[in-house]
Amino acid sequence: MGMLRWGAHLLLLLLAAATWTCAGAGAGVTSEYRRKLEATVDMPLDADVFRVPPGYNAPQQVHITLGDQTGTAMTVSWVTANELGSNTVRYGSSPEKLDRAAEGSHTRYDYFNYTSGFIHHCTLTGLTHATKYYYAMGFDHTVRTFSFTTPPKPAPDAPFKFGLIGDLGQTFDSNSTLAHYEANGGDAVLFVGDLSYADNYPLHDNNRWDTWARFVERSVAYQPWIWTAGNHELDYAPELGETVPFKPFTHRYPTPYRAAGSTEPFWYSVKIASAHVIVLASYSAYGKYTPQWTWLQEELATRVDRKLTPWLIVLMHSPWYNSNNYHYMEGETMRVQFERWLVDAKVDVVLAGHVHSYERSRRFANIDYNIVNGKATPAANVDAPVYITIGDGGNIEGIANNFTVPQPAYSAFREASFGHATLEIKNRTHAHYAWHRNHDGAKAVADAVWLTNRYWMPTNDDV
Amino acid sequence: MGMLRWGAHLLLLLLAAATWTCAGAGAGVTSEYRRKLEATVDMPLDADVFRVPPGYNAPQQVHITLGDQTGTAMTVSWVTANELGSNTVRYGSSPEKLDRAAEGSHTRYDYFNYTSGFIHHCTLTGLTHATKYYYAMGFDHTVRTFSFTTPPKPAPDAPFKFGLIGDLGQTFDSNSTLAHYEANGGDAVLFVGDLSYADNYPLHDNNRWDTWARFVERSVAYQPWIWTAGNHELDYAPELGETVPFKPFTHRYPTPYRAAGSTEPFWYSVKIASAHVIVLASYSAYGKYTPQWTWLQEELATRVDRKLTPWLIVLMHSPWYNSNNYHYMEGETMRVQFERWLVDAKVDVVLAGHVHSYERSRRFANIDYNIVNGKATPAANVDAPVYITIGDGGNIEGIANNFTVPQPAYSAFREASFGHATLEIKNRTHAHYAWHRNHDGAKAVADAVWLTNRYWMPTNDDV
Repeated sequence: MGMLRWGAHLLLLLLAAATWTCAGAGAGVTSEYRRKLEATVDMPLDADVFRVPPGYNAPQQVHITLGDQTGTAMTVSWVTANELGSNTVRYGSSPEKLDRAAEGSHTRYDYFNYTSGFIHHCTLTGLTHATKYYYAMGFDHTVRTFSFTTPPKPAPDAPFKFGLIGDLGQTFDSNSTLAHYEANGGDAVLFVGDLSYADNYPLHDNNRWDTWARFVERSVAYQPWIWTAGNHELDYAPELGETVPFKPFTHRYPTPYRAAGSTEPFWYSVKIASAHVIVLASYSAYGKYTPQWTWLQEELATRVDRKLTPWLIVLMHSPWYNSNNYHYMEGETMRVQFERWLVDAKVDVVLAGHVHSYERSRRFANIDYNIVNGKATPAANVDAPVYITIGDGGNIEGIANNFTVPQPAYSAFREASFGHATLEIKNRTHAHYAWHRNHDGAKAVADAVWLTNRYWMPTNDDV
Repeated sequence: MGMLRWGAHLLLLLLAAATWTCAGAGAGVTSEYRRKLEATVDMPLDADVFRVPPGYNAPQQVHITLGDQTGTAMTVSWVTANELGSNTVRYGSSPEKLDRAAEGSHTRYDYFNYTSGFIHHCTLTGLTHATKYYYAMGFDHTVRTFSFTTPPKPAPDAPFKFGLIGDLGQTFDSNSTLAHYEANGGDAVLFVGDLSYADNYPLHDNNRWDTWARFVERSVAYQPWIWTAGNHELDYAPELGETVPFKPFTHRYPTPYRAAGSTEPFWYSVKIASAHVIVLASYSAYGKYTPQWTWLQEELATRVDRKLTPWLIVLMHSPWYNSNNYHYMEGETMRVQFERWLVDAKVDVVLAGHVHSYERSRRFANIDYNIVNGKATPAANVDAPVYITIGDGGNIEGIANNFTVPQPAYSAFREASFGHATLEIKNRTHAHYAWHRNHDGAKAVADAVWLTNRYWMPTNDDV
């Protein structure tokens, strides 16, 4: 970034800070915007976005995620439907020079009356940060080639632009959300759970897991998405004899949890550029002494290094601060367990989904309660994260348009529309956050704020 | 029960009610009793209570628990150390007439540097309620014979005497607790978790799982113990490569969870005489939509029948109402999730362990909080359960003698001593609860109360 451009940014920051200091002192905003009223319906099975790629046994549903904590490894996953085929991925610096190869493995699963295709997972290792790679698979019959750019090496001022998407599903609205995100051009997606909504279909029709993966391939084959498990990933259906939680999700979407010292795929962390991203599991155990609790305690105490990665971001599915009557207070059980840790750790942002609308909080905390003192009201706290609920990806269950009244003090902005957000980290002190309402088109912003880093600017009341 | 005896009981009830109405209106009691100060130490490995039974491959560590929901099946477990041996259990109405046979199965497990013996589980089916059975196993080499009496058929006035024990361990104090319970003569034990404390030994020395099972055999081979998983059952030790929670516990202690419509052994229910006993899992997931949450919702809505089994009792390890600084507020995360359900269901008693002292609550609830109304103080509520913390079995970690001051209103009686309790259900309306401090000897009672049933006497303020 040149000095001139940096100077302009500084001016912008100062203006933004002035604006938002005012906003922070006033009442929260409940947006008056009214979305279109037509039903939210899934795209039909013959929609173009669900098309199976041509060619015998062609790799489909291609997606990537980090294969280690920082992106010097990338895990490539795909499905073959006709036969097992090759597990090999070739990769290199140009489509013509795929001079390295990695051998993956495959898995399959049954779910009631459904049998999955051959699900391949292959981790490409030894990658260089901030480097473009081409990769291809399907060397048995039909080869397909894709590319990705590895994230920058973790460093305090490494800029990075995250897309923030949750509760996406596979409706026409989902397609708008994804298209708008693509137009806004992030480098990776922090996905806060609820992918396909296959469980809304009779018998949890797992073909809808396949269609969803074909739908999002156009993005997730080209940049890593960081996965959070939502309730629609549970696929717990004892009435169908399906009693292993997260069965389709775990077979299809690997996470680099072992690299993060975790023992289950549902909670882990990655270090991308200047961000340390912690993924928590709303639907696993988090009581004291449990594996997730043990892991998070150690993660915050020993593995977070704000000097290296100043931006500390936490993902979970069920929000702790939500002022919508939909799913109101569902996050309380996890909040009372972990909130103090996150405030003590000066987490910058907590991202959640689950509620199908948009909401951004001020920096509030509710950590003084000791049962007998009555202190259970959320209070302003500059050490606290900003809580963002971004469960408005556009899934079939529709919008959650029933906010609690009056708007609570912790809520800064809320609106019942579909959309996505972006978090553009500029350097160690500043990041620009923006929420993009679908109906404004990709380039318009309905809510935005400059976030100041809690480690480097801990006393700045930014929101 | 004859009319004369019943009349005497009625008088006693009236007196008790009068006494406890007064007590209920006054301040809670923090007992001044001071236990002996010597250290709590485990019994040595060569203690008589840990003795391996004589004879080649003799069955050891024999224990029983319900094999179905009501006790027409009983699961017998034992360990053989020399070789696999026979899986057969023979049973019948006298030691000489073991005219029925059941074939079990076996399992083994490795834990770091430990390999278990052959762990046998065999479910005896087709039993008659309220009937004494003799059973024997070890038909390969050394036969051992035991007996049990099945519980009465579920019926609203069926009397039953439960022992209530938690956090037992294998110290000299543990031995006192067990001896006193035996002297007090219950029909079955509701065990609220933390069995062997093997995890307090280097490398979680699983030999201490074996010694514990030999120690308690003298009771649990003769009457069913109902198991709750505590934190000391987790044995989660990633540093040893042991990352499957509850591995030793699940291999050793089966529960009749499938009969209760559950899909994991850590939450389930049984119907014993006039009691419906629900076991919850403090260290599994309980967030909305999770398997435990789903099961409990359905259990309370469709499977609890207070007309058949009026006494609704819930077991868990980590208490919701605890006024000891040890483990203070650890149960909050589960309380905020489930408390309203238990109050709405008019649960009679909630039993927990974890805190190594004794405490009994009044009927209080803390269910009015909605984040913005500040109503987060426990308040008297006749619909609420009595909460009993009975984690004072005597384990090696010692007594928890640091109560919060002042005693909160929800706390009726608390004392930092080891002991056990009994719950003697008389009929559909009345049950006598008593806590037995170890140092008074078996027959003395340090805290007692007549509980009145929440279904049949819902407005009676009994404690």
